[in-house]
Amino acid sequence: MNSFGRIFRVHIFGESHGECVGITIDGCPAGLALSVGDFTADIERRKPGAKGTTPRKEDDLPIIKSGLFNGKTTGAPITILFENKNTRSADYEKLRAVPRPGHADFTASKKFGGYEDYRGSGHFSGRLTVCLVAAGVIAKKLLHTIEINSAIIEIGGEKDLEKGLQKAIDAKDSVGGIVECTVKNLPAGLGEPFFDSAESLLSHAVFAIPAVRGIEFGTGFAAAKMFGSQHNDALKDVTGSTFTNHAGGIVGGITNNNELVFRIAIKPTSSTPIEQKTLNIETGEIENFSVKGRHDLCIALRVPVILEAVTAFVLADLMLIEQKIPRVIST
Amino acid sequence: MNSFGRIFRVHIFGESHGECVGITIDGCPAGLALSVGDFTADIERRKPGAKGTTPRKEDDLPIIKSGLFNGKTTGAPITILFENKNTRSADYEKLRAVPRPGHADFTASKKFGGYEDYRGSGHFSGRLTVCLVAAGVIAKKLLHTIEINSAIIEIGGEKDLEKGLQKAIDAKDSVGGIVECTVKNLPAGLGEPFFDSAESLLSHAVFAIPAVRGIEFGTGFAAAKMFGSQHNDALKDVTGSTFTNHAGGIVGGITNNNELVFRIAIKPTSSTPIEQKTLNIETGEIENFSVKGRHDLCIALRVPVILEAVTAFVLADLMLIEQKIPRVIST
Amino acid sequence: MNSFGRIFRVHIFGESHGECVGITIDGCPAGLALSVGDFTADIERRKPGAKGTTPRKEDDLPIIKSGLFNGKTTGAPITILFENKNTRSADYEKLRAVPRPGHADFTASKKFGGYEDYRGSGHFSGRLTVCLVAAGVIAKKLLHTIEINSAIIEIGGEKDLEKGLQKAIDAKDSVGGIVECTVKNLPAGLGEPFFDSAESLLSHAVFAIPAVRGIEFGTGFAAAKMFGSQHNDALKDVTGSTFTNHAGGIVGGITNNNELVFRIAIKPTSSTPIEQKTLNIETGEIENFSVKGRHDLCIALRVPVILEAVTAFVLADLMLIEQKIPRVIST
Amino acid sequence: MNSFGRIFRVHIFGESHGECVGITIDGCPAGLALSVGDFTADIERRKPGAKGTTPRKEDDLPIIKSGLFNGKTTGAPITILFENKNTRSADYEKLRAVPRPGHADFTASKKFGGYEDYRGSGHFSGRLTVCLVAAGVIAKKLLHTIEINSAIIEIGGEKDLEKGLQKAIDAKDSVGGIVECTVKNLPAGLGEPFFDSAESLLSHAVFAIPAVRGIEFGTGFAAAKMFGSQHNDALKDVTGSTFTNHAGGIVGGITNNNELVFRIAIKPTSSTPIEQKTLNIETGEIENFSVKGRHDLCIALRVPVILEAVTAFVLADLMLIEQKIPRVIST
Repeated sequence: MNSFGRIFRVHIFGESHGECVGITIDGCPAGLALSVGDFTADIERRKPGAKGTTPRKEDDLPIIKSGLFNGKTTGAPITILFENKNTRSADYEKLRAVPRPGHADFTASKKFGGYEDYRGSGHFSGRLTVCLVAAGVIAKKLLHTIEINSAIIEIGGEKDLEKGLQKAIDAKDSVGGIVECTVKNLPAGLGEPFFDSAESLLSHAVFAIPAVRGIEFGTGFAAAKMFGSQHNDALKDVTGSTFTNHAGGIVGGITNNNELVFRIAIKPTSSTPIEQKTLNIETGEIENFSVKGRHDLCIALRVPVILEAVTAFVLADLMLIEQKIPRVIST
Repeated sequence: MNSFGRIFRVHIFGESHGECVGITIDGCPAGLALSVGDFTADIERRKPGAKGTTPRKEDDLPIIKSGLFNGKTTGAPITILFENKNTRSADYEKLRAVPRPGHADFTASKKFGGYEDYRGSGHFSGRLTVCLVAAGVIAKKLLHTIEINSAIIEIGGEKDLEKGLQKAIDAKDSVGGIVECTVKNLPAGLGEPFFDSAESLLSHAVFAIPAVRGIEFGTGFAAAKMFGSQHNDALKDVTGSTFTNHAGGIVGGITNNNELVFRIAIKPTSSTPIEQKTLNIETGEIENFSVKGRHDLCIALRVPVILEAVTAFVLADLMLIEQKIPRVIST
Repeated sequence: MNSFGRIFRVHIFGESHGECVGITIDGCPAGLALSVGDFTADIERRKPGAKGTTPRKEDDLPIIKSGLFNGKTTGAPITILFENKNTRSADYEKLRAVPRPGHADFTASKKFGGYEDYRGSGHFSGRLTVCLVAAGVIAKKLLHTIEINSAIIEIGGEKDLEKGLQKAIDAKDSVGGIVECTVKNLPAGLGEPFFDSAESLLSHAVFAIPAVRGIEFGTGFAAAKMFGSQHNDALKDVTGSTFTNHAGGIVGGITNNNELVFRIAIKPTSSTPIEQKTLNIETGEIENFSVKGRHDLCIALRVPVILEAVTAFVLADLMLIEQKIPRVIST
Repeated sequence: MNSFGRIFRVHIFGESHGECVGITIDGCPAGLALSVGDFTADIERRKPGAKGTTPRKEDDLPIIKSGLFNGKTTGAPITILFENKNTRSADYEKLRAVPRPGHADFTASKKFGGYEDYRGSGHFSGRLTVCLVAAGVIAKKLLHTIEINSAIIEIGGEKDLEKGLQKAIDAKDSVGGIVECTVKNLPAGLGEPFFDSAESLLSHAVFAIPAVRGIEFGTGFAAAKMFGSQHNDALKDVTGSTFTNHAGGIVGGITNNNELVFRIAIKPTSSTPIEQKTLNIETGEIENFSVKGRHDLCIALRVPVILEAVTAFVLADLMLIEQKIPRVIST
């Protein structure tokens, strides 16, 4: 459902064109210093405005409604809201009969019997990822000795990112990309056999990010083309350091004290300026369809900070389960 | 932990060289006809013996200890054991000081303080996948109108599977592979926003299978190289059928009534006949290491039926949540 | 944690003297008609103002932030806030060194290392029960054919409630009470063996209500004094109706189509006008202590509607698990 | 479902007259010394044979199938089976048309469509409580500094237990009783707001024990008759010790470092030698009915060790969540 985690738990809610989106973070240790300012940097990183991202202006100020007292977390649930402003619902309402290709319009309608808030993808909107970022900010503070970094490493099939983006601009189309995440200083021993392997939990959370189509750890799909003697990482010393890191920091579902490395594939933005065909559900006719709203040419550009965030809250939960973060932070 | 699912729940236990491995399936509807014979075909498919798989003979007879009465499920938990026979623990005990590269030996020891049953990977062994297959058999019977198929589509980087395998034999090394799973006749509407998307739950369960390094849905990683206008699947009719299926049957985390398609990357078997280097934890020296036990040259060969099984129990759970399978099967 | 339920799930947050208290209801079927007006009656019933309740005026207007569209639930999480107004934090802040007897002041401080919001019991305040009432309103609408009623049946040891309350007023002290809940038209078959018996889930939720000290089903504690031949309820017909109802509608943890009946014991309000002794944690001295704030003489007076609410959301969850409520309400 | 716990998790399975009953304990820390002998004392305490208990001889030898290696727990799930011997199914099979009053026969049949294993109450049998005892033995070893004790304090309404039992023998009927549980040396801070209060979790688990009809903490139902000034426990010192213990060791849902005290009501054994009336479902007639099988005159006599067991595994889970038990026991 809209919840994730065992000890450090997140509960997400809200719709793109409703009053707000929000998230409740439950199980966060007490005593963690936290202020609205802590959120600024990561929320800015997610914001549109750069080349290839939507010009829609979002005023993403986190409103902390609970769980904070005298500048520190209290151990009670932290609920954070982001108000929705500057929405233009009219852009979407006329599309009701014409499910947008690549969007959740059709599947949401099938699942929720047409009662879903369809405006701007409603609860399925990428807008909700700002909530993930907020949860990630808190998780990162808990994991302060651990360094989580994400970056786009490919756009539209190009390692030269400018070139990949230009391809989209030239074609007046949208493009996808690949985002890599690395985590340094992660202790060994995180991940729970059998079903809660580190990869299982990370991928579970990662596929909640809209537009993700694949995930691979370490050498990933390329490992399927290797010999065992090439792929195996030989131990270097008793800390668990290995000479190579094809495993990407996880063996047997458990972290091994090497750098955690994984990559995700982001599909091209479904909303593309190119005219496409789709079904008009009311008339039963195939119609030409073209998106007029404000959208990202390459949604992957906004994903790195979101990927860091989900990685952070998955790891924070595993650290709490493994008792490597205490339930009260004493300063 | 060792549990998975919300309504249709599986709990796995056991070790490779202990008395048995086993699984409890809880939440299975009552009234489903089930016999030991139902397990034969899938368990045979998982068995070694074919070219490229280990000659270790496993007598995998499911012993149903509970939850079955007069040939039908009762609604109470179904516990199934598989006894371990023909184990040669001595093969492994001498390796205690020398964690095998690519295996969970080191990480398990770090996590469980050296108390883990290390013989033959213990609880981390591929041996436990016979339990997944058993749960899959039951789930498939629940999903009898739905067709789940998995197959290897690449071995050692070769689409010609014989050729890929021969490569490993020639090199006296192990190889990896890619396994594809397709599901036909799956209804639209399965998957739960936000965190329990169909991809999230499938990938969560899939990464519990040892040796999986990546998963991709539909066009997957290749989608990251496409334009939006190419990747979008246009609706063909009101059932949700689309002209193309780049999405692989899931949009917005919810099934869309098209064929579900995903692929997983399997790393080369960690146990390779090739001599490798690894650390001797007791002496602190890097030693030459060579596996003498019975192992698969290509573990991917045994994965298809396992992949079908986890797919089946994930989908059975989603179908129960969505009330598309009743809690009592009336015949 | 702050979550309850398997399909119909509630997540509670907020503090007595923070900005708001709130609740997220996840897993509610789509298509349920809902308006702010639906909450009025039950919220009024919980309000203070009657004889024996606190004069603190709470303006309890539910603010629905998500999950509602065109007057119907969407299937997405419903988040409801209640703003805190008219709080007088100064009443509490001076009590920091003097944990109030009977309150969570001391235990919260031990658990959360002193970082908890201690004002007016913070997250432990009875104020949060307005959120339970809100969730109950939605659950009751889902259970519209089922009749849930709670009433006080004893105050301060007296069946005559006026008399019991007068006792408290005369003694200038607070009193406890007993609240009974009955549920009519509940179908047979609700409750899940082994650990999710109907009594298990109801009692789990009920003990989240502050001040509850006991629960008993049917004849309850009196059953321990009966003979088996007296206590057993003989079946009357194939619907499950019994001649007597000592079991209170649940046998073997599963509802049996008779009236569900249970009672809970509410302790006297911890805040009593009577002067008491307590420890000053800073000085280590035992001090005289007297409550000056606004409080209920008998908190039990406000419990019936809260008890109905938790009963309703427990039953709604069991009904969804048992597939007796659909995931989309078609009108 | 048949699972309980967040970190220390138990999964129960089996039927009274099937091959076995069993339990899987998942999340138990690694490194805990454990042997079959550890189970003897508590299993003996649960055994029948004393005055008032059934003469059915159960040879309750725990068979540990997994999770134990070299005499210590491994961190992997511990599955324990108890074989069923000496069962006389014929006693029960003839009762199919005549649901026994007070038993789960009718409700189980309604819930599971008649597919349930009805022999000797099947999965609803008190037989499964031997599994609870086994889980309790492990939990108690984890909690070795904490002292859990249960005892019957009333039988058939009599504090003099011999007298209460004689009442049943004289009346050739069954009687109920009250069992008290106390826990010494429990640290403060256990229990999780809002829904996982210590009382919530204890009562959840307690009501899974067959025949429990009520639970009360501390002064319990009697608290409802007290004044606040009487009921409040004044703090004595900074450890949390109070002059009185009406709260029974839990305030605000969290343990307060005083003795935990609670009582449960056990109904009279449903199977009584007294002839009763019940419905014959096949004929629709009310028939005379009399139990011929082997049964306990007072099932409460066997409950204390079971109550200790569920108390122990609830507390072990809370201790792990609160990080007061490590994930690896170093000796």
